[in-house]
Amino acid sequence: MYKAKVNITLRKSILDPKGKAAHHALQNLGLNEIDQVRIGKLIELDINADSKKNALELADIACSKLLANEVMEDYHIEIEKV
Amino acid sequence: MYKAKVNITLRKSILDPKGKAAHHALQNLGLNEIDQVRIGKLIELDINADSKKNALELADIACSKLLANEVMEDYHIEIEKV
Repeated sequence: MYKAKVNITLRKSILDPKGKAAHHALQNLGLNEIDQVRIGKLIELDINADSKKNALELADIACSKLLANEVMEDYHIEIEKV
Repeated sequence: MYKAKVNITLRKSILDPKGKAAHHALQNLGLNEIDQVRIGKLIELDINADSKKNALELADIACSKLLANEVMEDYHIEIEKV
Protein backbone atom coordinates (compact mmCIF):
# COMPACT_ATOMS: atom_id res chain seq x y z
CA MET A 1 0.00 0.00 0.00
CA TYR A 2 1.31 3.42 -0.95
CA LYS A 3 0.18 6.90 -0.05
CA ALA A 4 0.37 9.58 -2.72
CA LYS A 5 0.40 13.24 -1.73
CA VAL A 6 -0.64 15.39 -4.64
CA ASN A 7 -0.09 19.14 -4.48
CA ILE A 8 -2.20 21.00 -7.00
CA THR A 9 -1.42 24.68 -7.45
CA LEU A 10 -2.79 27.29 -9.81
CA ARG A 11 -0.28 28.28 -12.50
CA LYS A 12 1.54 31.52 -11.68
CA SER A 13 -0.15 33.39 -14.54
CA ILE A 14 -3.67 32.52 -13.36
CA LEU A 15 -5.44 34.92 -11.01
CA ASP A 16 -6.37 33.35 -7.65
CA PRO A 17 -9.52 35.05 -6.33
CA LYS A 18 -9.76 32.82 -3.22
CA GLY A 19 -6.17 33.69 -2.38
CA LYS A 20 -6.82 37.40 -2.93
CA ALA A 21 -9.84 37.27 -0.62
CA ALA A 22 -7.84 35.47 2.09
CA HIS A 23 -5.01 38.00 1.72
CA HIS A 24 -7.45 40.89 2.13
CA ALA A 25 -9.00 39.27 5.22
CA LEU A 26 -5.53 38.71 6.74
CA GLN A 27 -4.74 42.41 6.20
CA ASN A 28 -7.97 43.34 7.96
CA LEU A 29 -6.74 41.22 10.89
CA GLY A 30 -3.56 43.33 10.97
CA LEU A 31 -1.26 40.70 9.44
CA ASN A 32 0.37 43.15 7.04
CA GLU A 33 3.60 41.16 6.88
CA ILE A 34 1.85 38.60 4.68
CA ASP A 35 2.42 39.69 1.09
CA GLN A 36 0.70 37.11 -1.01
CA VAL A 37 -1.63 34.17 -0.51
CA ARG A 38 -2.21 31.42 -3.05
CA ILE A 39 -4.61 28.59 -2.37
CA GLY A 40 -4.27 25.18 -3.93
CA LYS A 41 -5.34 21.63 -3.19
CA LEU A 42 -3.67 18.83 -1.30
CA ILE A 43 -5.05 15.42 -2.26
CA GLU A 44 -4.09 12.22 -0.45
CA LEU A 45 -4.60 8.95 -2.27
CA ASP A 46 -4.25 5.47 -0.76
CA ILE A 47 -3.09 3.24 -3.60
CA ASN A 48 -2.88 -0.56 -3.77
CA ALA A 49 0.11 -1.09 -6.01
CA ASP A 50 3.00 -3.55 -6.09
CA SER A 51 5.71 -0.95 -6.61
CA LYS A 52 6.39 2.71 -6.06
CA LYS A 53 6.66 3.16 -9.83
CA ASN A 54 3.17 1.70 -10.39
CA ALA A 55 1.73 3.82 -7.60
CA LEU A 56 3.22 6.94 -9.20
CA GLU A 57 1.78 5.97 -12.60
CA LEU A 58 -1.70 5.44 -11.12
CA ALA A 59 -1.57 8.76 -9.25
CA ASP A 60 -0.44 10.49 -12.44
CA ILE A 61 -3.36 9.01 -14.41
CA ALA A 62 -5.79 10.07 -11.64
CA CYS A 63 -4.43 13.62 -11.77
CA SER A 64 -4.39 14.03 -15.51
CA LYS A 65 -7.79 12.40 -16.06
CA LEU A 66 -9.74 13.85 -13.13
CA LEU A 67 -8.10 15.64 -10.25
CA ALA A 68 -6.14 18.43 -11.91
CA ASN A 69 -7.07 20.82 -14.68
CA GLU A 70 -3.79 21.03 -16.55
CA VAL A 71 -4.78 24.15 -18.45
CA MET A 72 -4.85 26.16 -15.21
CA GLU A 73 -3.08 24.00 -12.66
CA ASP A 74 0.26 22.33 -12.03
CA TYR A 75 0.56 19.19 -9.96
CA HIS A 76 3.31 17.48 -8.07
CA ILE A 77 3.09 13.93 -6.71
CA GLU A 78 5.02 12.43 -3.80
CA ILE A 79 4.74 8.71 -3.08
CA GLU A 80 5.51 7.06 0.23
CA LYS A 81 5.16 3.46 1.34
CA VAL A 82 2.80 2.87 4.28
CA MET B 1 11.22 37.03 2.72
CA TYR B 2 9.96 33.60 3.68
CA LYS B 3 7.53 31.26 2.01
CA ALA B 4 5.17 29.28 4.24
CA LYS B 5 3.55 26.15 2.88
CA VAL B 6 0.48 25.30 4.93
CA ASN B 7 -1.13 21.88 4.54
CA ILE B 8 -4.68 21.84 5.86
CA THR B 9 -6.32 18.43 6.12
CA LEU B 10 -9.66 17.30 7.47
CA ARG B 11 -9.35 15.41 10.76
CA LYS B 12 -9.50 11.64 10.30
CA SER B 13 -12.84 11.39 12.09
CA ILE B 14 -14.55 13.92 9.80
CA LEU B 15 -16.32 12.64 6.69
CA ASP B 16 -14.90 14.06 3.46
CA PRO B 17 -17.69 14.26 0.85
CA LYS B 18 -15.47 15.86 -1.84
CA GLY B 19 -12.95 13.05 -1.37
CA LYS B 20 -15.72 10.42 -1.55
CA ALA B 21 -17.03 11.95 -4.79
CA ALA B 22 -13.54 11.99 -6.32
CA HIS B 23 -12.99 8.37 -5.23
CA HIS B 24 -16.25 7.31 -6.85
CA ALA B 25 -15.35 9.13 -10.08
CA LEU B 26 -11.91 7.47 -10.13
CA GLN B 27 -13.57 4.06 -9.78
CA ASN B 28 -15.84 4.88 -12.71
CA LEU B 29 -12.66 5.60 -14.70
CA GLY B 30 -11.44 2.08 -13.83
CA LEU B 31 -8.83 3.14 -11.27
CA ASN B 32 -9.88 0.51 -8.74
CA GLU B 33 -6.42 0.37 -7.17
CA ILE B 34 -7.11 3.70 -5.48
CA ASP B 35 -8.64 2.93 -2.09
CA GLN B 36 -9.27 6.25 -0.49
CA VAL B 37 -9.16 9.90 -1.46
CA ARG B 38 -9.01 12.79 0.96
CA ILE B 39 -8.98 16.38 -0.22
CA GLY B 40 -7.40 19.19 1.76
CA LYS B 41 -5.96 22.61 1.10
CA LEU B 42 -2.45 23.75 0.31
CA ILE B 43 -1.93 27.43 1.09
CA GLU B 44 1.23 29.31 0.16
CA LEU B 45 2.00 32.51 2.05
CA ASP B 46 4.77 35.00 1.19
CA ILE B 47 5.80 36.52 4.51
CA ASN B 48 8.01 39.55 5.19
CA ALA B 49 9.69 38.58 8.43
CA ASP B 50 13.17 39.02 9.86
CA SER B 51 13.57 35.44 11.05
CA LYS B 52 12.24 31.97 10.36
CA LYS B 53 10.79 31.92 13.88
CA ASN B 54 8.80 35.12 13.27
CA ALA B 55 7.59 33.84 9.91
CA LEU B 56 6.37 30.64 11.57
CA GLU B 57 4.57 32.64 14.27
CA LEU B 58 2.83 34.82 11.69
CA ALA B 59 1.78 31.80 9.63
CA ASP B 60 0.47 30.14 12.77
CA ILE B 61 -1.61 33.21 13.68
CA ALA B 62 -2.98 33.36 10.11
CA CYS B 63 -3.99 29.69 10.30
CA SER B 64 -5.59 29.78 13.72
CA LYS B 65 -7.42 33.08 13.15
CA LEU B 66 -8.57 32.63 9.57
CA LEU B 67 -7.29 29.89 7.29
CA ALA B 68 -8.02 26.71 9.24
CA ASN B 69 -11.06 25.59 11.16
CA GLU B 70 -9.43 23.81 14.07
CA VAL B 71 -12.60 22.01 15.07
CA MET B 72 -12.57 20.03 11.81
CA GLU B 73 -9.11 20.51 10.39
CA ASP B 74 -5.46 19.95 11.25
CA TYR B 75 -2.73 22.12 9.82
CA HIS B 76 0.98 21.77 9.30
CA ILE B 77 3.29 24.65 8.40
CA GLU B 78 6.64 24.48 6.61
CA ILE B 79 8.77 27.61 6.29
CA GLU B 80 11.49 28.13 3.73
CA LYS B 81 13.64 31.18 2.99
CA VAL B 82 13.32 32.60 -0.53
